[in-house]
Amino acid sequence: MKKIVVNLSGGLARLVDDFPQAHVVPVETYHDLLLELSDADGLVTYALTDNMLDQAEQLKYVASLYAGVDKLPLTRLKDEGIILTTGRGIHIIHMAEYAIMMMILHARGLDKLLGQQRQRIWAGADENPQDQIHGKKLGIIGLGAIGQEVAKKASLMGMEVVGVRRSAQATEYVSEVYGMEDGIEKVVSDCDYVINLLPHTPETHHLIDKTFFDLLKPSACMINMGRGDTVNEDDLYQALVNRQFKRYISDVFNEEPLDPESNLWELDNIVITPHISGPNVRYLDKAYPIVKQNLTAFLEENYEEMVNVYSHERGY
Amino acid sequence: MKKIVVNLSGGLARLVDDFPQAHVVPVETYHDLLLELSDADGLVTYALTDNMLDQAEQLKYVASLYAGVDKLPLTRLKDEGIILTTGRGIHIIHMAEYAIMMMILHARGLDKLLGQQRQRIWAGADENPQDQIHGKKLGIIGLGAIGQEVAKKASLMGMEVVGVRRSAQATEYVSEVYGMEDGIEKVVSDCDYVINLLPHTPETHHLIDKTFFDLLKPSACMINMGRGDTVNEDDLYQALVNRQFKRYISDVFNEEPLDPESNLWELDNIVITPHISGPNVRYLDKAYPIVKQNLTAFLEENYEEMVNVYSHERGY
Repeated sequence: MKKIVVNLSGGLARLVDDFPQAHVVPVETYHDLLLELSDADGLVTYALTDNMLDQAEQLKYVASLYAGVDKLPLTRLKDEGIILTTGRGIHIIHMAEYAIMMMILHARGLDKLLGQQRQRIWAGADENPQDQIHGKKLGIIGLGAIGQEVAKKASLMGMEVVGVRRSAQATEYVSEVYGMEDGIEKVVSDCDYVINLLPHTPETHHLIDKTFFDLLKPSACMINMGRGDTVNEDDLYQALVNRQFKRYISDVFNEEPLDPESNLWELDNIVITPHISGPNVRYLDKAYPIVKQNLTAFLEENYEEMVNVYSHERGY
Repeated sequence: MKKIVVNLSGGLARLVDDFPQAHVVPVETYHDLLLELSDADGLVTYALTDNMLDQAEQLKYVASLYAGVDKLPLTRLKDEGIILTTGRGIHIIHMAEYAIMMMILHARGLDKLLGQQRQRIWAGADENPQDQIHGKKLGIIGLGAIGQEVAKKASLMGMEVVGVRRSAQATEYVSEVYGMEDGIEKVVSDCDYVINLLPHTPETHHLIDKTFFDLLKPSACMINMGRGDTVNEDDLYQALVNRQFKRYISDVFNEEPLDPESNLWELDNIVITPHISGPNVRYLDKAYPIVKQNLTAFLEENYEEMVNVYSHERGY
């Protein structure tokens, strides 16, 4: 009988009933996790550390619920031949909603309006000019699953959408798709909104720097929902101090939590959210069908039935 | 040659060139307005007062850019046989965007997050639970042009939409439409979001009161984008103090500006915006085609070609 450890603070406990043919063990503490991992065949978890892998002598499958893999010990998983599946796709709807909300926030200066509310200030549309996203041009850098959902929703809201993709292939709801080499420049210089959804790789490290900010329109709004390390934050701070573009909205930073002493907090043309675009109160419910399908396939050794399998060759 | 006075603080000055066959006079001060009105045949304006009508001895047509007519001297216009056209429809897109933004704000507690930013507090999703509007149920009270646009956008964002309409006729993007008598109760008690878009009439005065708030789900968010006087604000304050429902978001109030001494400012489960959902930086551009078509028809006495003509019988 195979043993599956479920490391989700009590979440998805129904897997115990779903798989009577296996020994499914939900754990709630790190101590129990390490103990139970020693003879585990499978693990359902968000994070995965070297320490966890050290304990797990016969582990064959890790179902991580993270959408990204940048915090996971990929090389070791590859070397030890452990199958990895991810939570890719779970985030797409609520992350796209974050993008839509923030774009309208920018059009309306909602951050200023809520600041005025705190001071009991009623200042109308003359002092708080109201614009709209309908008719505006959005450039999406990184047209993966989330970028495509943002493109769809933005397009349905009446925006023109262009974007940059690893390979410049036609993409639904996107009127122009450019490749990474020359595409960023084209998109950044011409859009009212630029959304960064790049993963963090050696190629994208600090890719968003002075050159990038210099290209933005003075009226532009940039939103970062990708990875903080794609941005050179010294260059960002300088561009915002110089008011080179209108507003920067970011959910991700070089260091998280963002240091209370960071000079970014000083600025009035930035919206800072604490890496909340991805999490969701219904995240486990959304992950459940993926986990159930993959554990079924794993237990039956029907590996070709697994979804969201990470490929070390492909890189996702 | 007919005379048209344009009272838009210098806006739509291009009407002078558009209508060489008329005497088009843009005015910038109230003094000039009253002076020029004396022999005007037509007037393009937002507001219209009795004082203005007193001066205008031969006025035959008023193009008001307001979407609503509740601030206009309707009886007098009727008695004097002056044609009135409105800005109905100009608001629909940017008002619907306000609704979408505010619904996602509620799902994510963005008002709290921005408050934390001001204090340099980085508190993640455990302290700021993140939800989504996709899959949630929205009830719209008042399915006019704006309500229908909200229904469309909400539906495209994956919400289930029900609503209340003067006559319970089938409405695109709305799964259930109820009449005014029993519909409000049904909608209010069953929805995650309730949006009030009612006009202010004797029938709707303080219609949203204790009975209404008692019906809301504890998790509900109510948004008022209609008219402040449809709400009993004493009952509202009490319901919010009692935390009977989750969050009230309003752009309109009994008195505007909202008094700095109003007890509504004290609350942490209210979002107050200063009547900015309707105004728009591109409002005059949006109004232009309507005004141009109507002035053309008026000058040619082709009255059946006019659009947005107010009917005293129909009430809109």
